[in-house]
This record gives sequence, C-alpha cells and structure tokens, in this order.
Amino acid sequence: MNLYEAMATQRAIRRLKPDPIPHDVLSRIFQAASWAPTGGNVQPFRMVAVTDRDKLKSLGELYTKQWAVYTEGMRAEGDALAPARKKMMLAGDYLCEHLHQVPVMVVFCFNAEHMAITDAGLDRPSVVGGGSVYTAVQNLMLAARAEGVGCVLTTLLCFEESAVKSLLEIPDPWGTCAHIPMGYPVLGGYGPTSRRPLSKMLYENTWMASSSFEGGA
Amino acid sequence: MNLYEAMATQRAIRRLKPDPIPHDVLSRIFQAASWAPTGGNVQPFRMVAVTDRDKLKSLGELYTKQWAVYTEGMRAEGDALAPARKKMMLAGDYLCEHLHQVPVMVVFCFNAEHMAITDAGLDRPSVVGGGSVYTAVQNLMLAARAEGVGCVLTTLLCFEESAVKSLLEIPDPWGTCAHIPMGYPVLGGYGPTSRRPLSKMLYENTWMASSSFEGGA
Repeated sequence: MNLYEAMATQRAIRRLKPDPIPHDVLSRIFQAASWAPTGGNVQPFRMVAVTDRDKLKSLGELYTKQWAVYTEGMRAEGDALAPARKKMMLAGDYLCEHLHQVPVMVVFCFNAEHMAITDAGLDRPSVVGGGSVYTAVQNLMLAARAEGVGCVLTTLLCFEESAVKSLLEIPDPWGTCAHIPMGYPVLGGYGPTSRRPLSKMLYENTWMASSSFEGGA
Repeated sequence: MNLYEAMATQRAIRRLKPDPIPHDVLSRIFQAASWAPTGGNVQPFRMVAVTDRDKLKSLGELYTKQWAVYTEGMRAEGDALAPARKKMMLAGDYLCEHLHQVPVMVVFCFNAEHMAITDAGLDRPSVVGGGSVYTAVQNLMLAARAEGVGCVLTTLLCFEESAVKSLLEIPDPWGTCAHIPMGYPVLGGYGPTSRRPLSKMLYENTWMASSSFEGGA
C-alpha cells in the first residue's frame, strides 16, 4: 500500500473480530515495528504478542476496570455528550466486552535505562523517552492498516502496570507503554479520518505565524 | 512509495544539502504528520518550521554546544570507538557545521495539559505523553523518506528548551520534544538499515518466549 494512503486512512478501530490473523500478515506487521528508528539505534523496546486466552481474559478485565474510570465523566453527561465522543465511548465499550476474544494484543515494553531522556530535568512532564518507542508503535499501526487489520493504541493499562508485568513475566526495569489489540474490523474499518486542517497545526519561524507550506498535499 | 519500502530504508540522514525543498514536497510531508493518531484525537502537538537564517544559526549554535557535551565520551575513546559510532559522530559533526544552512528545521511542540499521561504516577520515567506526538514525528520522517528528503530526529535541544522557546516565541505550557533538520542528502541517502532481528524484539505471551510470528516478512 502507498504510504500516504495508509496514513490518510489510519482510523482507530475498536470493534474487532475474533477471526485469526494469518501468521505471515502478523509477521509483516511486527517486522515493520522492528524497523523503526530509535535514539542512538539502541532499540530500547520489546513487543509481547499476547495470544493466550487466559492472559487476554485477564488483560480484558483490567482494561474494562480502567475504561469504566476513564469514561465515568462521559457517561455522566448523558444526552449532552457530543456525538463523536459517544461513538468513541460505545466502540470502547465493545472493545471491553470482546477483548478476551481478539486474536492478539501487543504490549510494547521499554527500558528507560537505555534511553537518553533529554527532557527529564525540565519543569514540565517528560515525553522524550517516547521518541524511542512510539516510532515503532506507529510503524506497527500503519502496517496493520496496510494489511487491513484493525487496531487501536491504548495506554490505560499503565494504571495496572504491576499486574500486567506479573501476568506477562516482564522484569524490572522494563515498563509498558502501549497495549494494542488487533483483529479484523467488525464494521467498515479504515477510511478517511477527522483531523484539524494543516493550517492549525503548522507555523513558520514563530508561534502562530502562518506557514507557506500549506495546501499542496 | 510503498509503505514497507519506506520503513525498511528509513535511515537517519545527518549530512544535508542547503538546496531548497519545493513547497509542494514540504506540504505533503507536513500533511502526513498532521494525519497521525493521538490520544482522544486531541492532536496536542504543533510544528514550527524554521526557515529563517538567523533563527537557524541560533539553533545550530545551541545544538553544537549540546552535541559537544553528548559526544565528549565518544571523543575520549579515540581509536577504540566502534566504527558505527564513529561514523555517526562524524555525521553529527557535519550536521553541526551545516545546521545554519539547512532549508528547514522542524520543531515539534506539545501541550501536556491536553494529554492523558497514564504513566505519570508510576515509579519509573514517564513516556506515555510521547504517544500523542511521536506518532506524528514518525509520519513526518516516513513522508520525508518517501520524498527523498533527508532528516534525523534529534532531542538534544531539550537541554536548551527555554532558549528555543524564546527564539520561536513558543508560549507556556508548550514544550518541545523533537527538532528535525531536513534537506536533500549529501551522500547516498536512504537505504537498508541496521536493526536487530525480529526474534530479539518480539516475544509471545511471556517475556523472552519465542514467538510464532517470525520469518514471514
């Protein structure tokens, strides 16, 4: 698949079928992740592909618990909830109910001791460690999109990290930072996405200054 | 360009020509970044394309200062420095000397107040904020690769964040987390990369357990 076509249609897919994904398809998806650039080419991440039914059931229960907390405010809004958020919430509810049935859930692990986290000392939240793992996460998700395999990046299981590490026997000092269920889409699957126009995302030389690089795509 | 071809050949390119990049090429590259998925589709990042010569000169001076600190240990190793690291160091030296001449340097900014950083309370470095910006960084770099435009992800300028924010008039609470010089490659440019085999990056169900998804790519 063409690179731009994959990117332009990379939707979050939360309604996933239990149908198996062929091994050669999964192999290409995982290979794509392993190609990603990382700081100093250290590749300080690992993937755990969870396929065991019991482990998926446990992950599903932990995720469902955190999803309930995360969506409490949305549910309280009732009919006032914006349609796009309601749609996302219902799709997430579906994911909770079916997580134990997905063919595979990928857990990305990272080792901060092998990362140069250049913003660790700043007086704001640090994100730079993510630069050596979410490049791989994005490769994996783009490859899934190209293969027609649905997936969604979730991070709520970080709230249950000790339980997840215990379940998958992940040792210290490794952490987990992306938990990605994969499966063929139940509904229409991939298609056009809803993003801000480029003019709202890109400035030139100074903050809020319009750039001259818009409109050619 | 085919998605997998772009990923398999995404090298870090540090020797960049001063030649201009056509606006339609840059437009496609920035558009690709803006398509990236982010938590809750909030898109809590912005890009500042720096093209002003004086600002590029200032960024080059700040980067050169931090590059000297970063490579101090490598230089001390002298002839004992591994060839791959020496090659990277010399390419980085070239980047320092020519940063003021690149056609554009992209500074990615993020707003942590618009992110759900689910690992903020854990007893390990937090990286999850990166999940809503390095997806876009990777899209930008893959698009650059597809267009034949060289680039490299740098983060050393986080050590100079207050100076960078002042120079580009970036307001609080926005931080910066990726500083990406772009230009056409001086040497051979993109090509096969050197990464660990998939068997070293992927486990199934438990840590270190071999997966059944290898070798099909």
